Amino acid sequence: MTNATLTNGVDTATLFATLDAVKAAPAAAHFQFRASNEWLSGTHNRSTIDGFYGVGEERSHDRTFTFDADHPAVLVGKDHGPTPVEFVLHALAACLTAGLANIAAARGVTLTQVRSTVVGDIDLNGILGLDPDVRNGYQRIGVHFTVSGDASPEVLRGLVEQSQRRSAVFDVLTNGVPVTIDIDAV
Amino acid sequence: MTNATLTNGVDTATLFATLDAVKAAPAAAHFQFRASNEWLSGTHNRSTIDGFYGVGEERSHDRTFTFDADHPAVLVGKDHGPTPVEFVLHALAACLTAGLANIAAARGVTLTQVRSTVVGDIDLNGILGLDPDVRNGYQRIGVHFTVSGDASPEVLRGLVEQSQRRSAVFDVLTNGVPVTIDIDAV
Repeated sequence: MTNATLTNGVDTATLFATLDAVKAAPAAAHFQFRASNEWLSGTHNRSTIDGFYGVGEERSHDRTFTFDADHPAVLVGKDHGPTPVEFVLHALAACLTAGLANIAAARGVTLTQVRSTVVGDIDLNGILGLDPDVRNGYQRIGVHFTVSGDASPEVLRGLVEQSQRRSAVFDVLTNGVPVTIDIDAV
Repeated sequence: MTNATLTNGVDTATLFATLDAVKAAPAAAHFQFRASNEWLSGTHNRSTIDGFYGVGEERSHDRTFTFDADHPAVLVGKDHGPTPVEFVLHALAACLTAGLANIAAARGVTLTQVRSTVVGDIDLNGILGLDPDVRNGYQRIGVHFTVSGDASPEVLRGLVEQSQRRSAVFDVLTNGVPVTIDIDAV
């Protein structure tokens, strides 16, 4: 790999080769991601992220990642980690930003800075069961991007717009996804 | 606080007092959560989670949380963190588990163990733009819970079912949420 193929830290030669490989063998694009969670105490629990399936075989990350989630004291927790709903905001920002960097590289745009803030408004009368007209989750999520690079504002805005059109997290959050839950009670 | 009010590490007296306080002043339940993200290189970026608004004022976590996200090498990243879509699975497990512990405490059920695994199937022909009939995000998410405690299997299963009915993350993932994105290109 030479610097000639690196734009924004993206190895564009490998990126395009990956696209060609998936075009030739679409089944390679079937992935399964996983998280395992263990309850610790109260609202405090911990997820482990390690193995996944993709490109035809079982794989694992270079290291095992663990993340604690909890509620702050004002929501009767111990604040050992962010709330679950805050991780959703992180996931959305991360997905849009990763896509943006890839798209910029593919279009030959060198980025100098990308920052975003994601806010989610939620009325806890929903999850507390106090008002049947209030949903449990966020009522709205707003994302604000600031993007700088060696292209016109129109081109830079177009990178974010394309990233939105191709974002996995944006898709599941805006369109929903079927979730099934099964339970072993022992 | 005495042990008499602690079930599953949940301070049920405070939990019920919080419910009463919100019943008396519903506006206290309006929260806004936030994450700020900075692009680092390629698909590697980092979110910071700190301040939030709730119970009528600006608040902050006991400490600032930061989380890296990236793609693994097979997805043309450096594996500095989980993928954004894996954080979604963590958020779902964490939300269902926190709710379960609270609901168990409220119902007087002492839990001994709660574990869950969450899997999400995704066909990257969607986000790679190779097949217009394939969505960008997960096609399905499956959650498997194992729950143990001092109650019958039926009662234990009922805790998970009630947590599902009251989960903020389950709601946004299954029902979707409006997301707006605005862009400063500078």
